[in-house]
Amino acid sequence: MTRVNLLVDMARGKKTGGYQTLLPHKLKYVSTDDIRRLWRAIKKLEIRGAPAIGIAGAFGIVIGIKRSKARTSDKFFKELQNSSKYLGSSRPTAVNLFWALKRMEKVARDNRLKPVARIKNILLKEALKIIGEDMKSCRRMARFGSKLVRHGSRILTHCNAGGLATADYGTALGVLFESKRQGKSIKVYADETRPLLQGARLTTWELMREGIDTTLICDNMAASLMAKGKIDMIFVGADRIASNGDAANKIGTYSLAVLAKYHKIPFYVVAPLSTFDFNIKTGLEIPIEERSGNEVRGVLGKLIAPKNVKVYNPSFDVTPNRLITAIITEKGIFKRPYSNLTSNLTRLK
Amino acid sequence: MTRVNLLVDMARGKKTGGYQTLLPHKLKYVSTDDIRRLWRAIKKLEIRGAPAIGIAGAFGIVIGIKRSKARTSDKFFKELQNSSKYLGSSRPTAVNLFWALKRMEKVARDNRLKPVARIKNILLKEALKIIGEDMKSCRRMARFGSKLVRHGSRILTHCNAGGLATADYGTALGVLFESKRQGKSIKVYADETRPLLQGARLTTWELMREGIDTTLICDNMAASLMAKGKIDMIFVGADRIASNGDAANKIGTYSLAVLAKYHKIPFYVVAPLSTFDFNIKTGLEIPIEERSGNEVRGVLGKLIAPKNVKVYNPSFDVTPNRLITAIITEKGIFKRPYSNLTSNLTRLK
Repeated sequence: MTRVNLLVDMARGKKTGGYQTLLPHKLKYVSTDDIRRLWRAIKKLEIRGAPAIGIAGAFGIVIGIKRSKARTSDKFFKELQNSSKYLGSSRPTAVNLFWALKRMEKVARDNRLKPVARIKNILLKEALKIIGEDMKSCRRMARFGSKLVRHGSRILTHCNAGGLATADYGTALGVLFESKRQGKSIKVYADETRPLLQGARLTTWELMREGIDTTLICDNMAASLMAKGKIDMIFVGADRIASNGDAANKIGTYSLAVLAKYHKIPFYVVAPLSTFDFNIKTGLEIPIEERSGNEVRGVLGKLIAPKNVKVYNPSFDVTPNRLITAIITEKGIFKRPYSNLTSNLTRLK
Repeated sequence: MTRVNLLVDMARGKKTGGYQTLLPHKLKYVSTDDIRRLWRAIKKLEIRGAPAIGIAGAFGIVIGIKRSKARTSDKFFKELQNSSKYLGSSRPTAVNLFWALKRMEKVARDNRLKPVARIKNILLKEALKIIGEDMKSCRRMARFGSKLVRHGSRILTHCNAGGLATADYGTALGVLFESKRQGKSIKVYADETRPLLQGARLTTWELMREGIDTTLICDNMAASLMAKGKIDMIFVGADRIASNGDAANKIGTYSLAVLAKYHKIPFYVVAPLSTFDFNIKTGLEIPIEERSGNEVRGVLGKLIAPKNVKVYNPSFDVTPNRLITAIITEKGIFKRPYSNLTSNLTRLK
């Protein structure tokens, strides 16, 4: 079972971010084979980013069933479902988590006639396959997206949709890394992304490590840059995309999309197929996680407001399809109407 | 000269906010008769808010000349001009500072034939008059603005335009206090206002002291509330308004104005006549202060980003007149075209 531990390290550490609440000051990898520790890591955003959460979910299943003493596949499958349900309770918005959990359940179900030890091994292989697929789809999204980037482009991004949010070099940030690799000189503005500051802490750190010209701004400064004609395009990731193309992403994304429309700036969403939820028609059906008011009352633990003030703290908002110029997936760049995209993607998926 | 000290306390303390960088955790009054300490208080935002800065400027002149040994009015006037120039170098955007300094200079000039001791006394009286006028205009703006507020109105505000920014109970917040006093039940959302968090620290504190239903949000959450139909109107202050009605205010105000337009929500600016700059035609001529990048790299001194990351940190943005539903002054509510307003106001002023 050492291999599982090792791979969980990858999913939680090198590949999907380790202790993201310490960055950019400290980079720390955490190793665990405790499903409750993994659940807490997702809940507390040590692991975050829709694709990374999906991968963590798949390995959560592997961890969850590795000590199972079940001898019948019925009992084993019940234990697996318990693990899946438990992991699914960590965060409600990103669909990749549920997509990965369902995929693991399906693989177990498809192989239920095999001995339990064999099913465990198949599940481990499936989790590895999910990582491999995510790595490939990152590269493909990056190549498609980079066609939209010109030499000298000035690009705005929100939250963190980079290597810390995926198994490879990211969704929205992957496009920027690939553009840089192609020799395009770009300038990137990173929204700090209150309340948890993933932009200030993670995105700047990732971009600067790749030598990309990076400027940090507060979220409320983006409009001012747009008015001055200093933003050519916007790239963001997504946590769940409905059949009609409505996209849930980090709170503040919708705000940028409206501002982009007003200033006639292209607004691109970069997300793999695993982020699409074809079970829902519109963004209205996406559950939006509300987190503790203390995240807003304070900044990384330091109180900045009256401690008894009421707070509204949704983690995500939904950008309606009409504000999205294009969605970049590993299968290509799709434009409105997204009904075409989703029927295409349903076939592809 | 005790009286001057006392009144300076008022301008810096009770009336205009004292040590605003300690609030909401600690309320502290600072007393000084040192013009350099006063300059630093304005520069470091211990005193902030356009009307309060104007009042501080007037008392800065009183402090600046109180120890003058000048016997001729020429020498005295030169010293006064030096004080005025020095105080004017503290912050460039809010016009009230320059308005107050010019007004004090004019009073000195108009009385130049009188003995120096007498001019000093006249200047003190003028500074007191400025405080008195600001108190009255706060009350009048509040009464005009409260006509726009209905029972049950849900109101968004940005930064701090309350008692801590004026000699009395504020501009935008004055409207809310007056509405509450009239028995209207209102619900207020306060933008935290990065980078210096005047909304989280000062506005929530002021509103809650008056028993107003207050909810704190991060700046990037406002659009999400608007999309849900939870905001009926927006009130903000201003730091300088051009002849055509373009209004400079705290960074993030322009962003709200664009979002309000998109969501068809009335957007109101509340500001006294002293905030109008009839010497400039449009907002393009308003100098925008850029402050240290460390304000964005950190939160109240705590580092949250790579310490060498580039930062864009404008303190203000300019909202074009076409996005402003009305401007509320102590002379009434004015709507577009603001050319009427400014010609009216020029006469009134």
